[in-house]
Amino acid sequence: MPSYATNMRLKFSILALTLEAVTIVLYALLVVYDTGDAHGHDGNVEKQLFLINSVSMCPVFQDVHVMIFIGFGFLMTFLKRYGFSSVGINLLLAAFGLQWGLLLQNIWHMHDGKIRVSIEKMINADFSTATVLISFGAVLGKTSPVQLLIMTLLEITIFCINEHLVVEILNVSDVGASMTIHAFGAYFGLAVARVLYRPGLRNGHENEGSVYHSDLFAMIGTVYLWMFWPSFNSAIAEPGDPQLRAVINTYFSLAACALAAYATSSLVEKKGKLDMVHIQNATLAGGVAVGTCADMDIQPFGAMAIGITAGVISTVGFKFLTPILASKLGIQDTCGVHNLHGMPGILGGLAGILAAALGKKDGVSPGYQACGLASSLGFALVGGLITGLIMKIPFWGQPPDQNCFDDSIFWEVPEEEEENEERLTHGDYSKNKTEA
Amino acid sequence: MPSYATNMRLKFSILALTLEAVTIVLYALLVVYDTGDAHGHDGNVEKQLFLINSVSMCPVFQDVHVMIFIGFGFLMTFLKRYGFSSVGINLLLAAFGLQWGLLLQNIWHMHDGKIRVSIEKMINADFSTATVLISFGAVLGKTSPVQLLIMTLLEITIFCINEHLVVEILNVSDVGASMTIHAFGAYFGLAVARVLYRPGLRNGHENEGSVYHSDLFAMIGTVYLWMFWPSFNSAIAEPGDPQLRAVINTYFSLAACALAAYATSSLVEKKGKLDMVHIQNATLAGGVAVGTCADMDIQPFGAMAIGITAGVISTVGFKFLTPILASKLGIQDTCGVHNLHGMPGILGGLAGILAAALGKKDGVSPGYQACGLASSLGFALVGGLITGLIMKIPFWGQPPDQNCFDDSIFWEVPEEEEENEERLTHGDYSKNKTEA
Amino acid sequence: MPSYATNMRLKFSILALTLEAVTIVLYALLVVYDTGDAHGHDGNVEKQLFLINSVSMCPVFQDVHVMIFIGFGFLMTFLKRYGFSSVGINLLLAAFGLQWGLLLQNIWHMHDGKIRVSIEKMINADFSTATVLISFGAVLGKTSPVQLLIMTLLEITIFCINEHLVVEILNVSDVGASMTIHAFGAYFGLAVARVLYRPGLRNGHENEGSVYHSDLFAMIGTVYLWMFWPSFNSAIAEPGDPQLRAVINTYFSLAACALAAYATSSLVEKKGKLDMVHIQNATLAGGVAVGTCADMDIQPFGAMAIGITAGVISTVGFKFLTPILASKLGIQDTCGVHNLHGMPGILGGLAGILAAALGKKDGVSPGYQACGLASSLGFALVGGLITGLIMKIPFWGQPPDQNCFDDSIFWEVPEEEEENEERLTHGDYSKNKTEA
Repeated sequence: MPSYATNMRLKFSILALTLEAVTIVLYALLVVYDTGDAHGHDGNVEKQLFLINSVSMCPVFQDVHVMIFIGFGFLMTFLKRYGFSSVGINLLLAAFGLQWGLLLQNIWHMHDGKIRVSIEKMINADFSTATVLISFGAVLGKTSPVQLLIMTLLEITIFCINEHLVVEILNVSDVGASMTIHAFGAYFGLAVARVLYRPGLRNGHENEGSVYHSDLFAMIGTVYLWMFWPSFNSAIAEPGDPQLRAVINTYFSLAACALAAYATSSLVEKKGKLDMVHIQNATLAGGVAVGTCADMDIQPFGAMAIGITAGVISTVGFKFLTPILASKLGIQDTCGVHNLHGMPGILGGLAGILAAALGKKDGVSPGYQACGLASSLGFALVGGLITGLIMKIPFWGQPPDQNCFDDSIFWEVPEEEEENEERLTHGDYSKNKTEA
Repeated sequence: MPSYATNMRLKFSILALTLEAVTIVLYALLVVYDTGDAHGHDGNVEKQLFLINSVSMCPVFQDVHVMIFIGFGFLMTFLKRYGFSSVGINLLLAAFGLQWGLLLQNIWHMHDGKIRVSIEKMINADFSTATVLISFGAVLGKTSPVQLLIMTLLEITIFCINEHLVVEILNVSDVGASMTIHAFGAYFGLAVARVLYRPGLRNGHENEGSVYHSDLFAMIGTVYLWMFWPSFNSAIAEPGDPQLRAVINTYFSLAACALAAYATSSLVEKKGKLDMVHIQNATLAGGVAVGTCADMDIQPFGAMAIGITAGVISTVGFKFLTPILASKLGIQDTCGVHNLHGMPGILGGLAGILAAALGKKDGVSPGYQACGLASSLGFALVGGLITGLIMKIPFWGQPPDQNCFDDSIFWEVPEEEEENEERLTHGDYSKNKTEA
Repeated sequence: MPSYATNMRLKFSILALTLEAVTIVLYALLVVYDTGDAHGHDGNVEKQLFLINSVSMCPVFQDVHVMIFIGFGFLMTFLKRYGFSSVGINLLLAAFGLQWGLLLQNIWHMHDGKIRVSIEKMINADFSTATVLISFGAVLGKTSPVQLLIMTLLEITIFCINEHLVVEILNVSDVGASMTIHAFGAYFGLAVARVLYRPGLRNGHENEGSVYHSDLFAMIGTVYLWMFWPSFNSAIAEPGDPQLRAVINTYFSLAACALAAYATSSLVEKKGKLDMVHIQNATLAGGVAVGTCADMDIQPFGAMAIGITAGVISTVGFKFLTPILASKLGIQDTCGVHNLHGMPGILGGLAGILAAALGKKDGVSPGYQACGLASSLGFALVGGLITGLIMKIPFWGQPPDQNCFDDSIFWEVPEEEEENEERLTHGDYSKNKTEA
């Protein structure tokens, strides 16, 4: 009986409280403020620089924060009856993810057995949650909050291992994280989606679509991601020229990408109309694809070239590839993360290899860049498959097919629903005003 | 005849223009730019530092500005037919409030009879409006713009007296203003709500509820408040370690609070479903509760403990306490500000007393902290009762019970309403598309 | 046959791709990073200052970016069925416009035949797009994306000529661009609207109006523009006192303007109700009008006086002037840009002349200020007429009258539309829930 099976009352609250309890204990044991005292010998000067630098990072931190919570959250509100889950579960997963991510990202290099929290580490913690929010897009509407908390725990753990290997050990350059976040998050999510394949949704679902207003809510997410992407790609870049280049390259890549996405969207529709799905997503592909070489000396036109390519690939992917993935490979990618994060992420990795080969950044090796891309994809696919199998255990309150893409199974939804039902049965229209 | 009684044409415009006229005269007499010249002896160096510091505060000022106008404004749009008033009157009250607040906050320490405006003073002026916007939440839907302008005038005046006493005279530490803004604003509003008690709404009102889209609009407010709270709590903190601690503590308190709020929300609903009212509000309680000791050396896990406690208390309050306040005490708290600002504000004050007792901040006395809390509550309750009595005078165009929670009494509302009426009577559905 | 005439498939995609292709070629030839090396003799110190200054401008850049893409985009979503175009085409035009504007604004002063991109130049590029977005408001709902891309190309070109003449050659002071952006954009758009006059819309159009939720979406745009205007007016001000004055003056001008707009809105409606159209627009007029003298020493009360005047003029304009412009002059101004940007822009120019005459800024001449205003209006009107004539060529897929103000002619719109149709014909209400 679904209503029981999906009753989260104990499963969810116990899991969430347990995770938070474990986290706070670990924080009590391991996490302290970074007072900057540990930096360098001349404490005084070093500390002043540390404080100045930390304060100057706050605006960038807030921009990234907006991308994570407003950008990703509202981007997924396009579904007609899944807006509560999109914004709400996005907040839940990111709120837990950033606490967990901060722990695992820094477990590798502790000072005196302590993790020292700074603004920069908080930015990286926000970044780590992006992987989960991308994967969330692939399984949106077909999973329970319990499953998603489990995915958050596992995916961030695996992400931190791959990130440590790629960035710290292999010294791969990936300032905007095209490979370690976007490609990783996308293919991790696609692997999970494959394991959780639902034959019952083969022919779609009446709720798997948008309504006029839900598409406008989604545009809030799109535009915020589009606007603040320069902060995302430059946040952890080396101060000075590299950081400024990251801002400028991302700005132009996104601008060029937008034109390409609009043009392609119109071109692939037989009546030449624009498709909101393309505009909401493909316009952002330029930010993903320019990520790896955002801080490299590729010049504005180089960034624009990457952006245009990403915009075209992403739009074409939504139009032609997504249906094939679903029908042929059994990968039901709700938000089309393969087109927004997957392929553009790989494109970014390849662009980074090329830029490295062309010597656009000192000390960067094409070979190691390639290893970084391969590693990210490998960890994503294997990690996603394992995580998917764990999520598949029929105990996490996954919604039955007919209740997919519907908030009302996990949320108290305002009465207008019932009113409508009622209206259908008793022909009572007097509540119509409540739809105003 | 209500339509006359609630006709604001002269009352509102005359009051608003009079208030603005008085304000501009006072500004002409008293307010000048702070050019930084008055600071210190060595004008030149001091001035450079002043300018650098002012510019560095602009991003924080903008974050606070967003919390005041988008955060508070949209948080209250959850009501199905009261969105215009929520965002619109929020803007009106804050726009007047910041002008009035800047005057009264600085009347105490003028230089050569002048108030010198700086970015920091603008941030404090924004803060002063937050008290009114919190109280607005308690009386939302049951008051006229005229009444609310009167409340703004009086509440900010009383707030400035209490703030001066608590912060300047008693030297109480309340960097995030848990006591002086949140607890004060909440209990002030609850006192007003008590005086304006409407027996006619004892059994609720058909418009006192949300619809699907209005809950999504409200989430815009929730997420912005959640994201920028670190800026709110650190905005006026002492630069350096205290300011960074305020950012870090608030970040972790909110993250832990979100988990606790989600878990508790599911736990208290018999089917384990999440309730949007809890998610929209209780997830923010951690920002309120950590306010007083945000800049203290409580370490991240301390902040998280405060956040978890606040999230649980707030959610439980919405579920069990709000109905009791309404039925037993005649306090009809539309937005549940008691749960979001009231109890968490007191919790923040208590946490500050404890932190002071544990010596988490030099020169802070538990006793004085307790006095600060008591003073804030006292001024709020007495001030609120007096203000409520003035607002109760049957001349300010208060809406009749049946028109409560309805924009159309004070706003021109788009024709779709009439269309629906019409539809009900003439069975004409042809305008249905306009609902798209 | 309209469906063919308005089929954009080839026209739009070819035009968009061609424009982007030309742009990227020009960037490859002309645009490089500004590494700061070209500044001054002592490369090292100069460069450090350049980098510090550039980084400090990033938050302001992001604020301006938000105004352009969220502010302008959502401000225009008030129309019931034109939200996709408002946000979507706004993004398209701004994305192309900033690339084109950066080229033309800097073509006048290249170093070694190169344009050096910096954050400041990106802010100016964003500014240049504002002119187009203002004009877009005048013709909103009555033009095709193809026409609008053409308008973007031409308007930004003409804007850059006038801006160069006014600011660089005449040394006119217009830090907030009341004249060169707001008045220019408004009268350019009004001239285009005059040429594109549609007698068929003389009596209005059933879609030329808002619904409840669309007005709330528009408030997102309003509030963001209102909040970040201080950044807009101070972004390119001289660092130090002038920049701080620009922030402070704009803050108070907007606050006072809001009060005046609310009061006037209520005063001019016979029942004293507030009108969303006034609140969404007239509350912003203070930001426009204080633009020219934002950085001048006019003191807060001076800024407030400008704001109040702008708020009253703008509201009265919406109420009484807009209908006359449409009926008597054949100027159909969809968003009322004449009231928000036109008259307040002229007011700003006049205030600048007065402030210059009163010596509020050194080296600024009333005469030259007047020339700047006259030049901006002249270029706008002549440029707008010519651009309008080009846009009028019956080949750009302009929508037929009956399809104006309707997204569905250029966008794939969610099925609920069809459902409604269906419902009307077959009386099937079962899809009603999808409106939830």
